Amino acid sequence: MVKVDTSPARGMRDLLPSEVESRSKIAEVILRTYREHGFNQIETPAVENLERLIGSGGGDNEKLVFKILKRGEKLNDLSDEASLADLGLRFDLTVPLARYYAQNFSKLPSVFRSIQIGPVWRAERPQKGRFRQFVQCDIDIIAEPNVTAELELISTSLIATSRLGINDLTLRYNHRKFLDQLLPWSGVAQGLIGAALIILDKLDKIGADGVSRELIELGVDEAATSKLVSTLLEISTSDALPHGLFEEMNLSEAVQSEISAIASLGHNGRFGDVRFLFDPTVIRGMGYYTGAIFELGVSEFGFSIGGGGRYDNMLERFGRPAPACGFSLGFERIALYLSEQKFEIPDVKPLVRVRCENWASYGPASEFVDRAIGMGATAQIEGSSRKLESALRSYRSDYDARDTKPPWEILIEVAQDANRVHRIGGEVPEFDISFRS
Amino acid sequence: MVKVDTSPARGMRDLLPSEVESRSKIAEVILRTYREHGFNQIETPAVENLERLIGSGGGDNEKLVFKILKRGEKLNDLSDEASLADLGLRFDLTVPLARYYAQNFSKLPSVFRSIQIGPVWRAERPQKGRFRQFVQCDIDIIAEPNVTAELELISTSLIATSRLGINDLTLRYNHRKFLDQLLPWSGVAQGLIGAALIILDKLDKIGADGVSRELIELGVDEAATSKLVSTLLEISTSDALPHGLFEEMNLSEAVQSEISAIASLGHNGRFGDVRFLFDPTVIRGMGYYTGAIFELGVSEFGFSIGGGGRYDNMLERFGRPAPACGFSLGFERIALYLSEQKFEIPDVKPLVRVRCENWASYGPASEFVDRAIGMGATAQIEGSSRKLESALRSYRSDYDARDTKPPWEILIEVAQDANRVHRIGGEVPEFDISFRS
Repeated sequence: MVKVDTSPARGMRDLLPSEVESRSKIAEVILRTYREHGFNQIETPAVENLERLIGSGGGDNEKLVFKILKRGEKLNDLSDEASLADLGLRFDLTVPLARYYAQNFSKLPSVFRSIQIGPVWRAERPQKGRFRQFVQCDIDIIAEPNVTAELELISTSLIATSRLGINDLTLRYNHRKFLDQLLPWSGVAQGLIGAALIILDKLDKIGADGVSRELIELGVDEAATSKLVSTLLEISTSDALPHGLFEEMNLSEAVQSEISAIASLGHNGRFGDVRFLFDPTVIRGMGYYTGAIFELGVSEFGFSIGGGGRYDNMLERFGRPAPACGFSLGFERIALYLSEQKFEIPDVKPLVRVRCENWASYGPASEFVDRAIGMGATAQIEGSSRKLESALRSYRSDYDARDTKPPWEILIEVAQDANRVHRIGGEVPEFDISFRS
Repeated sequence: MVKVDTSPARGMRDLLPSEVESRSKIAEVILRTYREHGFNQIETPAVENLERLIGSGGGDNEKLVFKILKRGEKLNDLSDEASLADLGLRFDLTVPLARYYAQNFSKLPSVFRSIQIGPVWRAERPQKGRFRQFVQCDIDIIAEPNVTAELELISTSLIATSRLGINDLTLRYNHRKFLDQLLPWSGVAQGLIGAALIILDKLDKIGADGVSRELIELGVDEAATSKLVSTLLEISTSDALPHGLFEEMNLSEAVQSEISAIASLGHNGRFGDVRFLFDPTVIRGMGYYTGAIFELGVSEFGFSIGGGGRYDNMLERFGRPAPACGFSLGFERIALYLSEQKFEIPDVKPLVRVRCENWASYGPASEFVDRAIGMGATAQIEGSSRKLESALRSYRSDYDARDTKPPWEILIEVAQDANRVHRIGGEVPEFDISFRS
């Protein structure tokens, strides 16, 4: 046999039937929850014009765009890398949404609640559990300036995760306008704020000492560094809001009220065990956030399964300004976590195999298929290229090997003289299949 | 306001919520039908290594691949167009399936029935109703040499279209081995057969005269041309199989039996009005077909909504030879056809809007949301950035403008003094929502 490399492209993956099945069930629960809460599903193409993707505030992700080669006459200047590509694969669903809204807003409700579930692509260095094509699940509310939008996004996302049986969660939240005031208040010079935020974002990776060292290397003076880092550590480990600090910083009523609104969600008991934590170290790379920022993590393991925030200025870029706010569930992380938790695929149907000796028996065989499906079973036609006994042996060993077994499985043998039923597995119930139609 | 081009990339499209909804319903019906008949859904990545896509027997489609620019160090030689790209977007689902099977066959059932529903990309010249990203729905049976595989693919596809309410269909079928004998029998020289087939494939576009002219230009002699074209015309307009011709050509028993098997499907009454027609002009571009070839069309309009055939030699290329056979439904054509036929979206739920004066009323408001969803309604939170009266006016006019209206729609106003219900549209039933929890 010829040896051929048949693995998927680097960092991409094939999904087996059982994986597709459990992923579909998960997506179905999420989608139903979103829909019940008044969100509407949309779709944008996987491919966008490159100039829309680059310079969109997508942070480091912009460097990871898969670029598509120009075609035909357009590809005339090979000497210049920048002119080789005109399209790219989307790296998230937020940039395409902003373009979509500007293009289609006249056909959409005045406050628009969108659902997007679909793949995105990033040319990242492949690692365990991280792929170059992966699915995101986003909800966004456009044209609603009130914090009720944030509350609705967080609530709906938490109802979805709770329906999936994921309960041990922490929602950490922050506010961009609080950060914008915290750094100058600590003594960080205005010109260093952007770079300092990038360093703060690394707190969970490099720790307080690492952050302090990098801030000082950046040029933040020692007093400011120490004031900033100690304030962050104090706030981010407390369950209570730092009202005293808010007053001291002279944080506006409006921002305080938005922060309190999110805190209040954690108190009303609707989300059981979910812990709500105001945490000024939640920054989330993207430059486009303007208000609340949130991140949803599994408490026990600390890894994030979603997040989002308010990005009131992004839509302007496409000529149709509107306040906006979104929450993205990390579908791949959720699917991985649930598969480790042995998420059950419900509703495995009984399986009826109908064996045809030749095409002339396809007619009666297909009647049995129709009847079995009518009874709520899955039914399929089997050819006769293998001997009956050997086929039965292999079906039986397949049945036993299966993780999620159908409640019962049979083979119906359609033969010239008389049809027969062979049990493959499970407890075959009484049922009325009269042979010979 | 800045004027920005926000249209999707050339030849691609945005889908509105109502389009996504009806497309999901259609996909759901097709997927459920496939599953009930024992097929298993798989997924392959959108991106494949370029060398897998090129030279795969994909015919003209290979010229339409969107190629992805190499990244980083790999992109070192700009002078040579061929070395600029290493990946490409898949142009169909058959080539990826062949690679997938070779890669994963040890984890799959010995006879494997696959479902693939997903987008493919082709850099075609955009035209009305033809897009550069579009969805295909394929089923394939791998490792089943018997014609029961063809029968099962055709049956399952026809059950799906019938469940979608599409009945006025013609299934035209042909056999590659019949064609391989018909041309020499007519007198076409062996060396011209490939080119002659490409000309025959154009019969529905350029007519018998056009085909004859092109055959003669190709070098087929006049007697052979006339014998071939008149035979084709005679067969393709008759409902009966040309048994006399089969004998005269000395067509093998095996091939005759496969053709008869497909004909017999049309006689057993399972598919109501669907017309089955043996048609030697069904060729379907792809070079990889080896046995039966079929095409499903809407009788009244002639356009195709699906097709497929047997391709027993394709899997060899990936080092894991196995007989194989597939049927692809053209999802976009079906969606377009059904939207013109006013396909109904079933199950539009009642809509409950809950208006929050401020975030402090979000708690009671969210109780109403939970309760409404529990009743089977869709429920959503509305902010208060617009005056109540103006918001109501706009919800009411939205309701009236909607093509598919919810059975009823209300606004619940959560206020300090007392909550109130405002009717927006439809007949609001008696229901028990006790305000002030």
